[in-house]
Amino acid sequence: MRYRVAVLGAGSWGTALAQVLAENGHDVRLWGHRASQITEINQKHTNERYLPNHQLPESIIAYTDMAEAVSDVDAVLFVVPTKAIRSVSQDLVQVLQTKPVIIHASKGLEQGTHKRISEILAEEIPAEKRQAIAVLSGPSHAEEVARRDITTITAASTEATAAQFVQTLFLNHYFRIYTNPDVIGVEMGAALKNIIAIGAGAIHGLGFGDNAKAAIMTRGLAEISRLGVAMGADPLTFIGLSGVGDLIVTCTSIHSRNWRAGNLLGQGHELNEVLDNMGMVVEGVQTTRAAKELAETMGIEMPITQTIYEVLYEHKNINEAATEIMLRDGKQENEFH
Amino acid sequence: MRYRVAVLGAGSWGTALAQVLAENGHDVRLWGHRASQITEINQKHTNERYLPNHQLPESIIAYTDMAEAVSDVDAVLFVVPTKAIRSVSQDLVQVLQTKPVIIHASKGLEQGTHKRISEILAEEIPAEKRQAIAVLSGPSHAEEVARRDITTITAASTEATAAQFVQTLFLNHYFRIYTNPDVIGVEMGAALKNIIAIGAGAIHGLGFGDNAKAAIMTRGLAEISRLGVAMGADPLTFIGLSGVGDLIVTCTSIHSRNWRAGNLLGQGHELNEVLDNMGMVVEGVQTTRAAKELAETMGIEMPITQTIYEVLYEHKNINEAATEIMLRDGKQENEFH
Repeated sequence: MRYRVAVLGAGSWGTALAQVLAENGHDVRLWGHRASQITEINQKHTNERYLPNHQLPESIIAYTDMAEAVSDVDAVLFVVPTKAIRSVSQDLVQVLQTKPVIIHASKGLEQGTHKRISEILAEEIPAEKRQAIAVLSGPSHAEEVARRDITTITAASTEATAAQFVQTLFLNHYFRIYTNPDVIGVEMGAALKNIIAIGAGAIHGLGFGDNAKAAIMTRGLAEISRLGVAMGADPLTFIGLSGVGDLIVTCTSIHSRNWRAGNLLGQGHELNEVLDNMGMVVEGVQTTRAAKELAETMGIEMPITQTIYEVLYEHKNINEAATEIMLRDGKQENEFH
Repeated sequence: MRYRVAVLGAGSWGTALAQVLAENGHDVRLWGHRASQITEINQKHTNERYLPNHQLPESIIAYTDMAEAVSDVDAVLFVVPTKAIRSVSQDLVQVLQTKPVIIHASKGLEQGTHKRISEILAEEIPAEKRQAIAVLSGPSHAEEVARRDITTITAASTEATAAQFVQTLFLNHYFRIYTNPDVIGVEMGAALKNIIAIGAGAIHGLGFGDNAKAAIMTRGLAEISRLGVAMGADPLTFIGLSGVGDLIVTCTSIHSRNWRAGNLLGQGHELNEVLDNMGMVVEGVQTTRAAKELAETMGIEMPITQTIYEVLYEHKNINEAATEIMLRDGKQENEFH
């Protein structure tokens, strides 16, 4: 079955997902707002800034005009930064003429409201203008997906048929999809793991060993699960691809922006300098603020997140912060009994 | 409080744990069967083969005579290979004159019986000769503990006071202990993660990327949790230090023997050649057989373990095996609902 899919966002992940869809025989329209990039994709079939040295399928057609991109689509895939989700949704509603399945592959929480991405989408896109909402998340560097390395990922929706539809759209010999009904757990894991990646990068930058890295990842996973569960997630989702899987890839790979930002902080660089150097969105920096505020509102203890917040936003000394966080009193490790 | 603790096994992990205990002010007796090594520890305060270039506390006294080592002890810590647990327990019972807490820090399942280590200990050491049995497990390279890098670890016992006693014995400024009542989950995670480490090493040796590595670790964690839960474990233990924490350190660090063995297999070396080269016990090779048999007995699906078994014991081609395992049909990811 050939579907018409609009991919909103032509960064590295949106472009890699557009490639998967195109290779699966779907009719793919890739929307972005930068005219020079759109022209490059249509004429040279490359997206040099985001996927260097990589040739894209010629069947992908790119657009700057969203109305053209989404005309008669069966599905719309959002792959824009968290802070753009609401405004892009509003733009979409203005031009949408079909009732597509809405999928997103973004990772974060909205500043101020602390809302998950599917909540923003549900608010902005009226029910009569969409089918179910689904989320795609898992351990997946765009660069590796683009070169067809084997990748596994979770498709989550509260409606099983929507998760299965996403599985059908994307599944192929290098891109493996597992379904999960727990949208809250998948979105919270996806967003919050970026905080822990900053921490794991910092631990590395400060010169700690593998035991300490595993410690911050595991204790970090415990506290993001704690917040997730308080928000309604199934704790077991955090053991899956969108939880521990994504955490592993984000915390142990040089490709990860959040890890790299943490590593530079650990080496003693200032936050502004680090963010200037990255040149791409580092979602974890914003997510740390949202999670810290959310944890306070919910009365959830998140010592690692709290400490990273203080380093990022309150000039806390990173050496002291690391020692403090690693030396908290040992206690019982599992609170979900 | 100063306790008398006998550490049975003078390999790298036993020696590092003896150091932690000695630095905490306890009276530590380290037992091993190799006379030259025992003399080296007592005279030079080194254990060059297992912890190269490292000076041990002079207060650690090493013994080849178990009766001397365990005379009037408050606790006995087993750190011997899984296959030696039963015979060392039998030897201990012959010479034990106190009623110590029994702790172990070994990782594996007994060949043939598929028993966990605490089960073997409970069988061989009569109840009137011991207090509770506890297990110590978590992400902890011995080399890093020896040099006092920050390390977090789980102390598990069905009796809370025993877990807290272990916490009291070991806790210090670089060695952080979390308690957990789920002995089955901690022991199953500790043993089975070595199988996944062989798989992750093989995936690396074969040239796969980070997405594939995260995939085998996450799907591996799912299947070892599945077997663990069938044996009576709490699924959430697998999200903790002895589960995902130990998995991370074992699958992402060059120190890990099981990972290194897998990596060499992935590069095309034969199993015998790999085991000869390692020079230390590779617990995961034996554990793969035990887990595969156990999974069959229990009717549990463990596709990654099954495939690694076929590579290790049935000369299955490792390239074919990897492709096969990565390309299984996607399905729902979480079966514990």
